[in-house]
Amino acid sequence: MLSVHLENGLLELRDVPQPERPQGFAVIRLLLGGICNTDLELQRGYYGFSGTPGHEFVGEVVSADTQSLVGKRVVGEINLNCGNCSWCARGLGRHCPARTVLGIVHHPGAFQEFLTLPERNLHVVPASLSDEEAVFVEPLAAACEILDQVSLAAGDEVALLGDGKLGLLIAQVLHANGCRVRQFGKHESKLAISAARGIATERIDQASLPTAAFRYVIDATGSPAGLKAAVQMTEPRGAVVLKSTVHGEVPVDTASVIVNEITLVGSRCGRFEPAMELLKSGAVDVKALISARIKLEEASAAFDLAAQRGVLKVLLTAH
Amino acid sequence: MLSVHLENGLLELRDVPQPERPQGFAVIRLLLGGICNTDLELQRGYYGFSGTPGHEFVGEVVSADTQSLVGKRVVGEINLNCGNCSWCARGLGRHCPARTVLGIVHHPGAFQEFLTLPERNLHVVPASLSDEEAVFVEPLAAACEILDQVSLAAGDEVALLGDGKLGLLIAQVLHANGCRVRQFGKHESKLAISAARGIATERIDQASLPTAAFRYVIDATGSPAGLKAAVQMTEPRGAVVLKSTVHGEVPVDTASVIVNEITLVGSRCGRFEPAMELLKSGAVDVKALISARIKLEEASAAFDLAAQRGVLKVLLTAH
Repeated sequence: MLSVHLENGLLELRDVPQPERPQGFAVIRLLLGGICNTDLELQRGYYGFSGTPGHEFVGEVVSADTQSLVGKRVVGEINLNCGNCSWCARGLGRHCPARTVLGIVHHPGAFQEFLTLPERNLHVVPASLSDEEAVFVEPLAAACEILDQVSLAAGDEVALLGDGKLGLLIAQVLHANGCRVRQFGKHESKLAISAARGIATERIDQASLPTAAFRYVIDATGSPAGLKAAVQMTEPRGAVVLKSTVHGEVPVDTASVIVNEITLVGSRCGRFEPAMELLKSGAVDVKALISARIKLEEASAAFDLAAQRGVLKVLLTAH
Repeated sequence: MLSVHLENGLLELRDVPQPERPQGFAVIRLLLGGICNTDLELQRGYYGFSGTPGHEFVGEVVSADTQSLVGKRVVGEINLNCGNCSWCARGLGRHCPARTVLGIVHHPGAFQEFLTLPERNLHVVPASLSDEEAVFVEPLAAACEILDQVSLAAGDEVALLGDGKLGLLIAQVLHANGCRVRQFGKHESKLAISAARGIATERIDQASLPTAAFRYVIDATGSPAGLKAAVQMTEPRGAVVLKSTVHGEVPVDTASVIVNEITLVGSRCGRFEPAMELLKSGAVDVKALISARIKLEEASAAFDLAAQRGVLKVLLTAH
C-alpha cells in the first residue's frame, strides 16, 4: 500500500505491506487526511520524528474484532492509552503516561492507505456529516477543549489572538457557546471567515493591542510572541489559554503574570463528542477553511502548500 | 526625621520633615521593618525605583482621623487603592489600576521613622502578638494568598521549590492547612526550620528533581530556573503557583505546559486576616526566620546582610 514516510525533514512515498491488526484494533482505509501545523513542525525536524505522520483523518473500517464496525465511516481519537492506569480511569487517557500518539509518538499515522487504531478510539460518523466535515473533528475537539478547562459562559467576552486554522475553529466554538469573541489577526481573508459567522474581528499589528482589557485571552497565534501579547492583554486575575504549540522555550514576563495574578492554562487535545455535536448541528462551519484537496501521492507538494502564508487546511485524498 | 532613601541602587540616610497627613490617612511611627527580596531587587535598580523603600512593617499610630486608632499598634496592607472602581468593589483593591504601593510604587515606604497609610489599610495588632511576629504579617499574607487561588485541601500533596524567606512561610502555611508538603531546597540550615515543624524536606540539586510527580507545585525559588523545574515536576492537568518574582523574561517550555495541560498561577499579595489568625493561633512560627535586627541608621549594612547567601529575614529597628 502507499504510505507517506517522513525522516530528517524529508517526505517520501513508500510502498509498504498493509498493517497487521492487533487484537482490539481496527484497520481503517483512509478517506481524507488533514495537514495540521504539528505535522509541519514534525517536518521541520523539531521532535526527531521518523515515520508516517498524520493524525487528522476520516476513514472506513475494513476489519475489526467488532463486526458491526466493518464498513462504518469513522474518525479516531489520537491518543492510544493503556486503559488501566489512574489517568485512563479518570477519563483522561489523553494524558496516560504510557500512551502512544497517532502519527506523532510511536504509532504510524494516517497519511497512508490503511491505518490502525484501537476500536475504543473510534467514533462512527453520522451520515449527515460529509468526509470534509468529519476530517475536522480532531482539531475541532482541540478547540472545544478550552470549554472543558475554563468556565466560559454565554455573554463572556473573550479575546482570541490568531487567525490560523486552529484560531478560526476556536472562534466558531466560542461563538457557538455564546461568548462575545473578539478575534485579532493579521490576514483579512482569514478573518473574513469568522466575520461571515458574525464574529467580531480586528486586523491589527501588535503595537495596537489593548492592555489589561480582557478577562479571558486565548493565544492561538502559533508564534512565541503570542504569549507575551496575550499576557499584556489580560486583566488582573484573568486567564490566558495557551493553544500555540511552539518549539523550544518561550520568553514570558513572569513579573506581569505574578503582579496581575494571571492564570496561564495549557490546552491540548479534546473530547470528540462536543466537536461532532457542533458539526451535526451546523453551529460550526468548517468548509470555508479548506484551501486544497491533494492526492496522497502528492503529499510532499501538499505539505509545501500547507506551509505557505495565507493557506488554511490542506486535505490529503486517498483516491 | 530619619528616612532611608534609595536612588540609582544607592541607599542613603536623609533627615526629612515628618510627613503630612492627608484626610483618611494615619501617620504611623515605625517599630520594626522587614527587608524583603523585592527591596533587594529595587536596590539592584530593576524597576527604576527612587524613594523610600519598605513595605513590611509594624508601627504605632500617632495621628489619624479616627481617634480610637491613635496609640494602637498596626500593620498595613501595602496597596493604596482608589476605593471606587470595580476592582475595589469586588474586594480586589490589591489589583486597583489606580493604586500606589507602599515603598514600591509612588508611595513612600516604611523604612523611615514615620510613614503614612490610609486608615482602611490598617489592621490593629492584638496584644498577644509581638512586634517580631507582627512584622511578618505582610509576607505571611502573600503565602496565604495561594490558598485563596488554588483549592488545596487537607491531605493534598504539594511540592514546594525554594527554602528562602517566602518559601519557609509558604511551607508552614500549607502545613497548617493540612497539606502534605514536600519542600525542596539547597540550604540545610533553612530546611531545618521547616523540618522542625514536621514538614518533609529534601536537599537536592536540580538533576534529581522528580518528573510529572506532583499535582501541585509551588515555585518560590526566586530564580528563573525555578519555573522550568516546577513545570517538569508537575503531573498532567496539575498546577504550578508562581511565587518567584524575577526581573525580566523567564524562558518557559510552553510545549510541556500545553501537552500536559498544566496551569500556571501567578500569585502576589494576600489578605491580612488569615495571616494574623495563623500567627495568633501559633500554627505558624516566624521567629526562627529572623537572622538579624539592625538599626534603621545602618540600613545600608542591613541590605548588604540581607543579600548574603544563607541569611533570612533582616529586621530594621527604629530605635
